Amino acid sequence: MLDVCLLGTGGMMPLPRRWLTSCMLRFNGSSLLIDSGEGTQIAMKEAGLSSHSIDTLCFTHFHADHISGLPGLLLDMANSDRAEPIRIIGPKGVERVVGALRTIAPDLPFDITFEEIEDRGAEFEAHGMQIQAFRVNHNVPCFGYAVSIKRAGKFNLEAAKALGLPVQFWNKLQKGETVDYEGNTYTPDMVMGAERKGLKVAYCTDSRPTKGIVEAAKGSDLFICEGMYGDPEKAQDAKRKKHMTFYEAAMLARDAQVGELWLTHYSPSLVGPGRYMKEVRKIFPEAYPGKDGMKKSLLFEED
Amino acid sequence: MLDVCLLGTGGMMPLPRRWLTSCMLRFNGSSLLIDSGEGTQIAMKEAGLSSHSIDTLCFTHFHADHISGLPGLLLDMANSDRAEPIRIIGPKGVERVVGALRTIAPDLPFDITFEEIEDRGAEFEAHGMQIQAFRVNHNVPCFGYAVSIKRAGKFNLEAAKALGLPVQFWNKLQKGETVDYEGNTYTPDMVMGAERKGLKVAYCTDSRPTKGIVEAAKGSDLFICEGMYGDPEKAQDAKRKKHMTFYEAAMLARDAQVGELWLTHYSPSLVGPGRYMKEVRKIFPEAYPGKDGMKKSLLFEED
Repeated sequence: MLDVCLLGTGGMMPLPRRWLTSCMLRFNGSSLLIDSGEGTQIAMKEAGLSSHSIDTLCFTHFHADHISGLPGLLLDMANSDRAEPIRIIGPKGVERVVGALRTIAPDLPFDITFEEIEDRGAEFEAHGMQIQAFRVNHNVPCFGYAVSIKRAGKFNLEAAKALGLPVQFWNKLQKGETVDYEGNTYTPDMVMGAERKGLKVAYCTDSRPTKGIVEAAKGSDLFICEGMYGDPEKAQDAKRKKHMTFYEAAMLARDAQVGELWLTHYSPSLVGPGRYMKEVRKIFPEAYPGKDGMKKSLLFEED
Repeated sequence: MLDVCLLGTGGMMPLPRRWLTSCMLRFNGSSLLIDSGEGTQIAMKEAGLSSHSIDTLCFTHFHADHISGLPGLLLDMANSDRAEPIRIIGPKGVERVVGALRTIAPDLPFDITFEEIEDRGAEFEAHGMQIQAFRVNHNVPCFGYAVSIKRAGKFNLEAAKALGLPVQFWNKLQKGETVDYEGNTYTPDMVMGAERKGLKVAYCTDSRPTKGIVEAAKGSDLFICEGMYGDPEKAQDAKRKKHMTFYEAAMLARDAQVGELWLTHYSPSLVGPGRYMKEVRKIFPEAYPGKDGMKKSLLFEED
């Protein structure tokens, strides 16, 4: 199970009833946070989540509305008696930017390791989550993230029994390892079915629509995408400021054949995103306006 | 009239229903903000106030809960089309710390000037407000602020007429200037009564109680003071962490003979400050538990 929480839905600046866009993913007891603008630590508490289990922090880019809450978040994690190291992934310069912000949070009881994303993107593994950072098109280097949970094929009990291999070796085959036993070699494919459908969440803010986003989001169960503007008349603003309208996000969702689209990163001037959804759903029916604290648990398909 | 708004009342970390301690003063169209932790720009909007008119920003010290909201606040001011320079006052190193935080807010349409406070304290004048920065006793260099509005004596019309000085020179005398006219010298005291009672607000967070605080807060109409702990059993925690209990703050208010005390900078563990007020008022009857967005307009005494 992969738990997703959209902590906030605002772009540019936090508002009294709209936290800045940030997303928390939780798998097997480890949390991954994408972006942390001003107030994200409060949004997390409002959503009933804790910062304590965040092992991985991914930043899309370094505009203040995506990273200004980091010093407070790190101190909140320190106050929760966290001692394990955390890992911060972001565009080039991430160590320098985080270092500057740590001027006001210098003493932390845990280590931080940094990983910079190459211009063309990068892949990471974190506690069972496969993270793909993909380049998007904003006015500064900016990345989206696709997080996948792979699922191995089904174990074929009958085939295992038929091999004549003792039970204590079956687990190795299940883990994908090869076993040598009494002169014979046993490979995983002898007992494992084809890889089954896993889970996938794609996240993209601060970009114009691109083919790269469609490729990276391909087949996601959930696609969280910026929709800065709902009003069709703001299409030119979206182009000029390197953002997207609701309709552009819906076209990406349709082309990437995702299960569900959540819109987020609303302009401070946008009130009532729901009023535009009828038109948005003509493009992509499974589109929903994101709301602060919106949650979903993605489950593996039943066999 | 001096308008005061206590924007938040939390210490250490912002909570879902408690902003970090910050105070906005407004006099003659110019605003002065003391501290700006994470979320202060949102607290300001909730209180119906705008960042646009902030000409002076004073920082008590550089712990994150007092300054982490600065990048967002500066961008909010930029978005409000502010072009006039702002002035930032704080302990030594203020320019370096603000410079580091501006890594994520590099482009602003206004200039910032910096003024560092000497170890023993300093005095500043800002748009009719006399600011006294006074040293307090915390685990890093930290200052309280006393803001006073002076009020000249009453103009004595009869005395002015009796001088035989033409009317066009009266205004100069009212402003405190000396006038030479037809061989005679006229001084302000000839037409002005004794200086009248002005207005004064004192603000102190993050300190143990000190005599210096009592001196600086002396005679304030309103004294906003930290009360980290209400539970008397936390007295040792307060000493160790260089903070104050409600009762220690009340003793300072009593000794400084202030008009009214507002408690603030509550520990995140403190719930329901009101429950301790009966005991606090035995020490100082005009004590009130601060609340987010609490406002007061201080008026000059009638003649």
